[in-house]
Amino acid sequence: MTPARRANLTRLLSPRHIAFVGGRDAEVAIGEAERRGFRGAIWAVNPRRDALGGHPCFRSLADLPEAPDAVFLAVPAPAAVEAVAELARMGAGGIVCYTAGFREAGATGAELERRLIEATGDMALIGPNCYGMINYLDGAALWPFAHGGTCPGWGAAIITQSGMLSSDITMAQRSLPLTHMISGGNQSVLTIEDFIDHLADHPAVRAIGVHIEGLRDVRSFEAACLKALDRGVPVVALKTGSSRIGARLTVSHTGSLSGADDLHNALFDRSGVIRVKNPSELLETLKFICVSGAPAGPRVAGFTCSGGGATMLADHAEIIGLDFPAFDAPAQAELAGMLPPIATVSNPLDYTTPIWGQPGITGPVFERAIALAKADAAVLVQDYPAAGLDESKVYYLNDAFAFCAAARRHGIPAAICATLPENLDAETRDMLIARAVAPMQGIDETLNAIAAAARWSAMRARLSADRPQPLLPAVPRNDVRMIEEAEGKQWLSALGLAVPEGRVVAGEAAPIAAAEVGFPVVLKMMGPRLAHKSEAGAVAVGLVDAAGVARAVADMRAAVAARDPAALTDRFLVEEMAERPVAELILSVRSDPQFGLALTLGSGGVLAELIGDSATLLLPATAFEVESALRGLKVAHLLGGYRGAKAVDIAGLAARIAGFAEAVAARADVLAEVEINPLFVYDKGGVAVDVLIHEWAAT
Amino acid sequence: MTPARRANLTRLLSPRHIAFVGGRDAEVAIGEAERRGFRGAIWAVNPRRDALGGHPCFRSLADLPEAPDAVFLAVPAPAAVEAVAELARMGAGGIVCYTAGFREAGATGAELERRLIEATGDMALIGPNCYGMINYLDGAALWPFAHGGTCPGWGAAIITQSGMLSSDITMAQRSLPLTHMISGGNQSVLTIEDFIDHLADHPAVRAIGVHIEGLRDVRSFEAACLKALDRGVPVVALKTGSSRIGARLTVSHTGSLSGADDLHNALFDRSGVIRVKNPSELLETLKFICVSGAPAGPRVAGFTCSGGGATMLADHAEIIGLDFPAFDAPAQAELAGMLPPIATVSNPLDYTTPIWGQPGITGPVFERAIALAKADAAVLVQDYPAAGLDESKVYYLNDAFAFCAAARRHGIPAAICATLPENLDAETRDMLIARAVAPMQGIDETLNAIAAAARWSAMRARLSADRPQPLLPAVPRNDVRMIEEAEGKQWLSALGLAVPEGRVVAGEAAPIAAAEVGFPVVLKMMGPRLAHKSEAGAVAVGLVDAAGVARAVADMRAAVAARDPAALTDRFLVEEMAERPVAELILSVRSDPQFGLALTLGSGGVLAELIGDSATLLLPATAFEVESALRGLKVAHLLGGYRGAKAVDIAGLAARIAGFAEAVAARADVLAEVEINPLFVYDKGGVAVDVLIHEWAAT
Repeated sequence: MTPARRANLTRLLSPRHIAFVGGRDAEVAIGEAERRGFRGAIWAVNPRRDALGGHPCFRSLADLPEAPDAVFLAVPAPAAVEAVAELARMGAGGIVCYTAGFREAGATGAELERRLIEATGDMALIGPNCYGMINYLDGAALWPFAHGGTCPGWGAAIITQSGMLSSDITMAQRSLPLTHMISGGNQSVLTIEDFIDHLADHPAVRAIGVHIEGLRDVRSFEAACLKALDRGVPVVALKTGSSRIGARLTVSHTGSLSGADDLHNALFDRSGVIRVKNPSELLETLKFICVSGAPAGPRVAGFTCSGGGATMLADHAEIIGLDFPAFDAPAQAELAGMLPPIATVSNPLDYTTPIWGQPGITGPVFERAIALAKADAAVLVQDYPAAGLDESKVYYLNDAFAFCAAARRHGIPAAICATLPENLDAETRDMLIARAVAPMQGIDETLNAIAAAARWSAMRARLSADRPQPLLPAVPRNDVRMIEEAEGKQWLSALGLAVPEGRVVAGEAAPIAAAEVGFPVVLKMMGPRLAHKSEAGAVAVGLVDAAGVARAVADMRAAVAARDPAALTDRFLVEEMAERPVAELILSVRSDPQFGLALTLGSGGVLAELIGDSATLLLPATAFEVESALRGLKVAHLLGGYRGAKAVDIAGLAARIAGFAEAVAARADVLAEVEINPLFVYDKGGVAVDVLIHEWAAT
Repeated sequence: MTPARRANLTRLLSPRHIAFVGGRDAEVAIGEAERRGFRGAIWAVNPRRDALGGHPCFRSLADLPEAPDAVFLAVPAPAAVEAVAELARMGAGGIVCYTAGFREAGATGAELERRLIEATGDMALIGPNCYGMINYLDGAALWPFAHGGTCPGWGAAIITQSGMLSSDITMAQRSLPLTHMISGGNQSVLTIEDFIDHLADHPAVRAIGVHIEGLRDVRSFEAACLKALDRGVPVVALKTGSSRIGARLTVSHTGSLSGADDLHNALFDRSGVIRVKNPSELLETLKFICVSGAPAGPRVAGFTCSGGGATMLADHAEIIGLDFPAFDAPAQAELAGMLPPIATVSNPLDYTTPIWGQPGITGPVFERAIALAKADAAVLVQDYPAAGLDESKVYYLNDAFAFCAAARRHGIPAAICATLPENLDAETRDMLIARAVAPMQGIDETLNAIAAAARWSAMRARLSADRPQPLLPAVPRNDVRMIEEAEGKQWLSALGLAVPEGRVVAGEAAPIAAAEVGFPVVLKMMGPRLAHKSEAGAVAVGLVDAAGVARAVADMRAAVAARDPAALTDRFLVEEMAERPVAELILSVRSDPQFGLALTLGSGGVLAELIGDSATLLLPATAFEVESALRGLKVAHLLGGYRGAKAVDIAGLAARIAGFAEAVAARADVLAEVEINPLFVYDKGGVAVDVLIHEWAAT
């Protein structure tokens, strides 16, 4: 974003005047600006109407008293392009281009969009094909539909790629404090990344929620999110469209192991972004963070006044790996002394109904339990009675306020959550927000939010200590060509990876070659139609003498010919047979047109497709990141030395893999994908037993 | 349940008169009966007060005009036992015993509970230590707290083990039609199973929701649920306390693979019970089933008026395996002709805003799309604007009613769901319920409910065609003793399973024994301290000659002695070495004190602990059930013939496993657990390569 556009974006978000250009849609938008309490000037522009929403119309943009800070533009697409050009000449600040009919509408629209971008110059433009922008802090709205939402002077900024979803969110009944809502539409000029970058600087923005259908620029996204991380503003992402897309290189296994969704996850992980699964989780996570802040660690103290609630907390915490640490014996004894005899001291703690609603007793219980659990966060489960049935509400509030006070005294983030999302009324939610305790809706949603916020703190610490290098650029090429295994192994040697000793010979020379590399050997037929050698009958293992090799050559010719005569060649790779490894990995580096280079690690050999145990990192990746990824795999149990096998030096292995990935990346001009499967891993090193390499083909 | 108790339960649930016995709690309960609109006689009983809740008090039970159909009892525990005895003598129908202080309060309480049960005789008793019962159909309540909930004359009966949760559910704002709410407390007399059995017969009960902390009698539960299944009444279970408990036989691998939660899942699966994850899902699933019914199959047609909504439907459907079948080319062409040009024809279908709210256009789109997708169910996503912001509500309702009409014409279950649960107001919910379309709250919740309901239909078909035999009884024993592998393999042979040929000999005789069984051989040291032989150094494989065997004996003695001299023995198992299999399984049959016998199948060998790929069935299990379980495992990919290996006859393998499980079950008096790991599986059979058997020990 140029400095000029950034200044114009500030004008657009906090305008002194808004020009509404168009007919019925502009009229609705004027009403919404007024509903939001906009105090600046509202200028209606329409050549054929006298007034819009009670505001007299200017006949044209040229008639406006001065260049507007913000413009809501709802005229047909060609006219919109002209209007934008005129606004640029006038020195307007920015535009919400509600008009559709651009890129999403085919080739003509795409050309119009190109001209729209050109006409925009340094102005700020949201859209086209978007709902627009609401600034809850300053009471400004450029929004063509009825909208809701509230703001206590701080809160979450939300950016979406779906106008309907942004509208749904403003209608939500969750008391989430909002600062901004931006529906980005086609993102022709200003993108999600620009909005994150800009809003991260705003002192009232405590968190940024972003709904992503697809990113325009992953490198800008990474930079913007890391900036927000540095500012202490968590970014919470709802990425939709997670269905796996067919991988480009479908001949490899990596395609089925790691799709676009893994690449997004890898990006979020290196950018300090929290990912959530659905809109409810987006709003609840933002609410927890904005109201309470992020816990420093994962230890939680939980309280309920029912055994059922405590069990549900414990169940879901186990599923998501959130820690309700148990009380040690002295702590148990101390708490038992403060509780009725029927209470069982545990965390989560059912403090039991005999002391319910008696803050003189429950308050000290909350306070000591938080201290004894060394809790980083605390949660109290309360389902408030419905309106009209709330004779007992005062008892709930007694415990709620005692809990708020205990959390405040310990200075930790805290939440009160209802088992059923709706069992926490708006009045109570507001009272809790005023006490900086998040009013959360749903047990699972609450624990997910606490876990996500704690994970954000951990990501922030890690990324502050060990900031990743900027992502590598993508290679703008598409067509690939497979190269043969023997040649692939020469590549691997050049890239610093050990391969079995071997040579490629004619069938008749295979027994001699075998004697030279040393028995036992592996024999494979080479050929362009033999990508899947096992299935083609083109592999023989464990050949222990020359006669066996000669037999294998003959058998292999027959087997391959039987399946696909055209696949037959007279080139055989004779290799020493690698010893049984501690574990088999799959290891791939591939070039993605959007994300650049990606490293995928996983269980290899037979397991590769069987168990889908893999991790994907974007490059560059440090040895430490590779080690973390390795340790997170199921196959790590084998690497650790399983059933008496020697343990692998995982740090050393990770360093070698990171070095290998770097070496592949350095040749990304030539190599499109390198997939080693299996990589045999031993206690002191690794050997690439098979490899499939795709080069960029001449185009 | 005896016929007399069943008749009394009918009296308790639909009473002509209710006696409220006690003080303040009884007074609240009287108010709740009146809130519910109870039209029968209310009799207050209190020796020291003149009136309770405006009703003059009888001094004692003896003063009542006749034996009450129902009694709400809230007096201290010892007095409660006396009152129950007196009520039994009077011929009362049933009792809600709100009083606590029984089994949950230690030994004295347990003795009181024993006396309470005895005093109850053939009466129906809910509790003690419970909230009680609400009958929404007949307007009867025996409930000591403010409660909500509504009933259109049919709906869901809910039974819980947590009073607080049952109260939370009555307060929910979801328009779930309710018929009964029963909080079962200690279930001393009437259990969850009794309530399911009884309510399944009620014509107004369209589904039964049950919250389970722990079952008292799994066999009665199975019978009651199968009865409900036969009646066409789905049972939806929220089982809490899913954290894995330590298995009894921790020396085996099965313990870490399969915990109490898997046994519950196995029970639910054979009983036709739908399991849900949290209270929201419980209520949404019940709502979908009660309002719309269960779809006959898994094909769904989805509609949205936003690309974002369609994507979210598709994303979650992929995760849970729900099917939005794609339209074929002719169907695409037909629908494209009915939609605006900017629409992309897909399922889920974004029908786009140009036709939004125009039922003359959207109605035919819904109708044809449902037909062309051959849909078993349909869903429309709509987030209604909040109160006060609903100028556009009529457009939403236009599409909603067109959708309802299309679904009705096709006679399929249908739902309208809001992206955010709260974006569907009560008025709209009621309108949809009147049209038999479920008003669902949350996209994920909706798809989960549809998938669960479709699964129920499939379970019903399967269990109708192939009704499982009643569960085997549990063996009431606890102490176990490990037996040695060689003896274990004799057991396996006796039970009909192939084992490698082998013999147990002294170390010095091992080379000769090896020659007799044939090289290559495996050598293992036998001994009571050698449960984990690999780790102890007590296994050598691939020994190809006598000298090798002699060396292995010496090495093994040294290795075992180095780790644990006391483990050293002079008994060696010499076995022929089994060929490399197609796949390795783990196979165990164990005796659980609550569930009886359970069969666990999974990936074996190194994979057993690595990937946690297992399935658990309760016994007896048919070969078909075993085959289904096998086919659901990840290792099934290997069994299918992986990378050119011969495919295993899975049906034959399943039949042999089922036969083996039956044979173990027949010796359950002796065998506590038989765990084979690995079972080497070949194209034509299996060989048990290692086995760990625990017998019941003398007690």
